[in-house]
Amino acid sequence: MTIMNRKSLQVSIYIANLNWITYFDRVFALRDAGELAENATAYVSLEPCNHFGRTPPCSEALIKAKVKKVVVGMVDPNPIVASRGVAKLRDAGIDVTVVEEELCKKLNEAWIHQMLTGKPFVTLRYSLTIDGGLSDDLGEESTEAGGYYSRLLQEHDAVVLSSKSLQKYPLPESREPNSNQPLYIIISKHPNPVINIPNHTQELGSNVIIVADKETGVGSEQGIETLILDKVNLTTILESLKGRGLCSLLLDLRGGFDDFEDILNGVEGNLVQKLVVEVLPVWSETKQDAAAIKSISQRAGLKNFEPKKEGKSVLLEGYL
Amino acid sequence: MTIMNRKSLQVSIYIANLNWITYFDRVFALRDAGELAENATAYVSLEPCNHFGRTPPCSEALIKAKVKKVVVGMVDPNPIVASRGVAKLRDAGIDVTVVEEELCKKLNEAWIHQMLTGKPFVTLRYSLTIDGGLSDDLGEESTEAGGYYSRLLQEHDAVVLSSKSLQKYPLPESREPNSNQPLYIIISKHPNPVINIPNHTQELGSNVIIVADKETGVGSEQGIETLILDKVNLTTILESLKGRGLCSLLLDLRGGFDDFEDILNGVEGNLVQKLVVEVLPVWSETKQDAAAIKSISQRAGLKNFEPKKEGKSVLLEGYL
Repeated sequence: MTIMNRKSLQVSIYIANLNWITYFDRVFALRDAGELAENATAYVSLEPCNHFGRTPPCSEALIKAKVKKVVVGMVDPNPIVASRGVAKLRDAGIDVTVVEEELCKKLNEAWIHQMLTGKPFVTLRYSLTIDGGLSDDLGEESTEAGGYYSRLLQEHDAVVLSSKSLQKYPLPESREPNSNQPLYIIISKHPNPVINIPNHTQELGSNVIIVADKETGVGSEQGIETLILDKVNLTTILESLKGRGLCSLLLDLRGGFDDFEDILNGVEGNLVQKLVVEVLPVWSETKQDAAAIKSISQRAGLKNFEPKKEGKSVLLEGYL
Repeated sequence: MTIMNRKSLQVSIYIANLNWITYFDRVFALRDAGELAENATAYVSLEPCNHFGRTPPCSEALIKAKVKKVVVGMVDPNPIVASRGVAKLRDAGIDVTVVEEELCKKLNEAWIHQMLTGKPFVTLRYSLTIDGGLSDDLGEESTEAGGYYSRLLQEHDAVVLSSKSLQKYPLPESREPNSNQPLYIIISKHPNPVINIPNHTQELGSNVIIVADKETGVGSEQGIETLILDKVNLTTILESLKGRGLCSLLLDLRGGFDDFEDILNGVEGNLVQKLVVEVLPVWSETKQDAAAIKSISQRAGLKNFEPKKEGKSVLLEGYL
């Protein structure tokens, strides 16, 4: 929490990662601010709640703290809150403005999806060459702090990787300052593969889960948590990880695309919400078989399809 | 030519299509402007020449017209001109400013390339789906006035098409206001194909050339100019059209990609300068064989790779 000055109190700072934890922060922020909050303006990315959940209602806390004005990013899509937080504040004589609703909806997209559907927000990421080849490569700038790949790892609670990719690359890590690394879900679909978990990964210990089918059943001997499923696909993975409270999941299509064939059926099953494609400014070197990705026969087009320059590459984003 | 007002005389307006014809325009512009040019500011996208070519030197004409100031987009890369035009104007007491050099270089890229190499500037265009499939489709907005495809047809002197594409689509036309349509070069590589030239194309008459190899040799019976080559590839096409003074050529990879296989060797042979790729926000419907395009094994990456939103699609541009 940063108290900018008496007149401008930033209650919720980390809006890109907004989830329940921010509710705690919001109450704690006001607690820490103490008397400084009086007559200050509070900026919140999401409408303050008006009900008892894990903490006392935030609207109550704001009223008690005697803030003068509350700037709200977006109204809460949670039917329990549903504009009641804003109404409560106004009733208490606080000046409330709702701003940048569309931008805040985008920042909160994973949380909103999870709130409305009860399922994690799933993003599918892959790289293409300029001639339409599927590629394992990432642009140099992409993995650095501020790069899209580093940000994706920060923004998602978990990342699904192919076990084969770990034979080629180190476990990917977010380079954002003070970033929490995601939970690594490693798909191992082939009978008796040598899963070459680097030492580095073992240090992470509990942040790695290997998902394998019955025939494979490896990993546990390496002291890594292993989940044995009848079928390894997106439905079974989401179902078995339900208890972990994952709000967002990144499917990172690098290395061993065949590991992903069944996972990608999740696109058809409406389990994937967002697509992030890095287009590299190069021609294919190896004629990588793009069968896995070509198997997607989704008929609907992407919505809000937008490009962005990202280092030497171009980043394409769209919604399914 | 538009005379904006006495103080601001726009001599060369159509800078996107700048070529020798603009030299004529420039002299004619001054002739038409007459006394209005006196003490006016002339805007030119390219340094005025200082030598006798097809017309008397432009610098001379500007001095005679008694303009007060000349704003020059870029210095002429032609070694015969080489800053001498600017020097001549300054000697005559005219205020000369060179502005927006990079932007004007881009606008004049085809002309500069032709000037420095003696070969036409060649642009390769194709469409990709979001899963890396080669597609025949164009975004709806792309072909309308102001759309990139309509602009490409306007900006290039000639467009190379597959004969097969004409069986599926009408002959593409630029929708830009007052646009000259390009010369259509139609590749017909297969023995005895039925070239279904629409009536509309026949009306265009002399603007269509069919390029075929010895075994094919069709088209002439339809009253259309036909060029029979030993081998149909980019080198032989450029060589045989040398006399036509083409400054720029668009390779439009729609329909019948196999017609283009030999043409695309031109990428390896450094005969292609620019790449324009439309990425459609859809998944592949037919699993189009992208063998033609995948056959490009150019090792160097693209330079100045930039994206742009284009209707519902994304346009990627880069230089080889």
